[in-house]
Amino acid sequence: MPSPDNASSEPPRGGRVPESVRWVGGEDGHLEILDQTALPSRRDYVVCRDVPTVIEAIRMLRVRGAPAIGIAGAYGLVVAAGEALQRNLAPDAARSHVLAQAEDVATARPTAVNLRWAVERSLAVLASLPAESPAALLAGVLLAEARSIHDEDRRLCAAIGRHGASVLPEGGVLTHCNTGALATGGDGTALAAITTAWDQGRRFEIFADETRPLLQGARLTAWELVERGIPVTVLVDAAAAHLMKSGRVSSVIVGADRITANGDVANKIGTYGLAVLAEAHRIPFLVAAPSSTFDLSLSSGDDIPIEERSPEEVKKPLGVQAAPEGAAAANPAFDVTPARLIRGIVTEHGVIAPVTRETIAEMLMRQP
Amino acid sequence: MPSPDNASSEPPRGGRVPESVRWVGGEDGHLEILDQTALPSRRDYVVCRDVPTVIEAIRMLRVRGAPAIGIAGAYGLVVAAGEALQRNLAPDAARSHVLAQAEDVATARPTAVNLRWAVERSLAVLASLPAESPAALLAGVLLAEARSIHDEDRRLCAAIGRHGASVLPEGGVLTHCNTGALATGGDGTALAAITTAWDQGRRFEIFADETRPLLQGARLTAWELVERGIPVTVLVDAAAAHLMKSGRVSSVIVGADRITANGDVANKIGTYGLAVLAEAHRIPFLVAAPSSTFDLSLSSGDDIPIEERSPEEVKKPLGVQAAPEGAAAANPAFDVTPARLIRGIVTEHGVIAPVTRETIAEMLMRQP
Repeated sequence: MPSPDNASSEPPRGGRVPESVRWVGGEDGHLEILDQTALPSRRDYVVCRDVPTVIEAIRMLRVRGAPAIGIAGAYGLVVAAGEALQRNLAPDAARSHVLAQAEDVATARPTAVNLRWAVERSLAVLASLPAESPAALLAGVLLAEARSIHDEDRRLCAAIGRHGASVLPEGGVLTHCNTGALATGGDGTALAAITTAWDQGRRFEIFADETRPLLQGARLTAWELVERGIPVTVLVDAAAAHLMKSGRVSSVIVGADRITANGDVANKIGTYGLAVLAEAHRIPFLVAAPSSTFDLSLSSGDDIPIEERSPEEVKKPLGVQAAPEGAAAANPAFDVTPARLIRGIVTEHGVIAPVTRETIAEMLMRQP
Repeated sequence: MPSPDNASSEPPRGGRVPESVRWVGGEDGHLEILDQTALPSRRDYVVCRDVPTVIEAIRMLRVRGAPAIGIAGAYGLVVAAGEALQRNLAPDAARSHVLAQAEDVATARPTAVNLRWAVERSLAVLASLPAESPAALLAGVLLAEARSIHDEDRRLCAAIGRHGASVLPEGGVLTHCNTGALATGGDGTALAAITTAWDQGRRFEIFADETRPLLQGARLTAWELVERGIPVTVLVDAAAAHLMKSGRVSSVIVGADRITANGDVANKIGTYGLAVLAEAHRIPFLVAAPSSTFDLSLSSGDDIPIEERSPEEVKKPLGVQAAPEGAAAANPAFDVTPARLIRGIVTEHGVIAPVTRETIAEMLMRQP
């Protein structure tokens, strides 16, 4: 198998955005994760031949975006089975190894629900196999399931893009963080709504919040749009209110990391503030996410664990010291937007609006 | 006179923040401006012996903060008179030179009103001198007036600090941008309210928005507080809403670059959004500024020119490329907060509350 380590200087792909996660080879193959922390200046793939490398990539946000993390997690279990295969573990030991690693993968980040969802879906397939199944069989079945999750996400993104485009009003649209190809297995969620509308020939100004502290909007969303030849205007997060007041923003659409039974949405820090501002300016605030983002086990957003990340992300933008050493920093990675501020939630099944416990339950019961 | 060029590695001053603007020598002396773009990593003073250097420092935000810019502008006219002195210009030519340079200084930045206010105050003194006054006399009179503006600002800051501290409620306080010693000739405006309350023995959590794009909150406000030994917590601007929702913020206090007759406030981009969020969370939103910040010639905030700065400030945080070259960027340096969102305006004369055309006119008529 050729080494992919030198994949770092791929030329632009003429309107295509590189895959955020890809499996190379068969069940004894390996996982490659596009290092999004190096974008847009470099296109490096992290080669994952063991589970700690997968977990490190998830924790350090080399792969991020709730759906993409789920896909990476599913492939992570194949990597775990591959470890068992390499160590010639007996069936019992191989299965125990995968189960132990699965728990570490599922808890690599706490807020997005798709990670646990994908891991548990893969484990359910594993549970259906006979106890005497060898490591190679475990790896093969887990790979098939991961590919299935990945392929499904592509179709979900396409459906979300279509439904989202249909409800996006005319005029400027503002988005936050990155919800495009890099965040998913397909074309994205909220960003897919925007690009689908664009591909349909509709023209409007697209505003991308830079999304501090990790600048996913400036580094990833703007980059994806530029790669696709779609004009984009970046702004500092604090300029959103001014743009809304000046009439340049007609809608806001964002992704989600977890949605509770009542429609409360956990998403990148800054989302909640945008929702309050959108309401104050009578601008529709939309959320786009696959149904796997819903966590019906949680009654409301109060129950969602919010990841607090390192103060260094705040104090050192792009690694450069800004705040003095002696300062503290608050760095909640997510916030929770209450359902009452959300005009509609775009899923692969259609648009949930108004957002209530009942409309959510009804939509999620539909078959795709 | 010893060269101050090597002033860059001064040791910490044990609780004092270095002066943002200082005049060295007599009327044939020069102006030194602390380069705030290099803080907190370096303490460099820009030596200004000609007007273009002064204007460059104002334009590039080496000196910033409405009151400090005004003071720098007033000293800038002394530099202009010094140029006339060095060139041995006759009285007529010397005065013409100062008047021409004064217009360039006054328009170096468009939004803060203090700059034009300070320049016009100095020019009024100049106008009272006989036509045959030599350049040396012009320089001497302009220096006296600049020193007077500088000294007055120190007293204004102290008064604003006292009045502001008296209306700051218990609990966490959030501020935006930098409104401390670096932004003024004294201890600051909004930040003086906070530090005065702290010096009075009151204890609360102080939150500083980092304030993208130029990070004055992280680089300057946090640094000033750390220098003074006061604990501070920095946050990305987009995290403010989450902190408000979580109950950790009991008030917001900011400065102002221009306040119109009806109480609308132009201030650093992000201020308006904070005011909307504060209202949504029923948190008092306060503004602190000297009376020179009021521009009664403007009826409302709609009339304030908003400076649009270079897209590079957004696309390259701290000079490091974040957004791709192909992306556009919006970079309004200021926004306008309507009076209805402002609980009170703290001036050197007292606190204007409620904020109306009438209460403003009444307060500004008071003598200090």
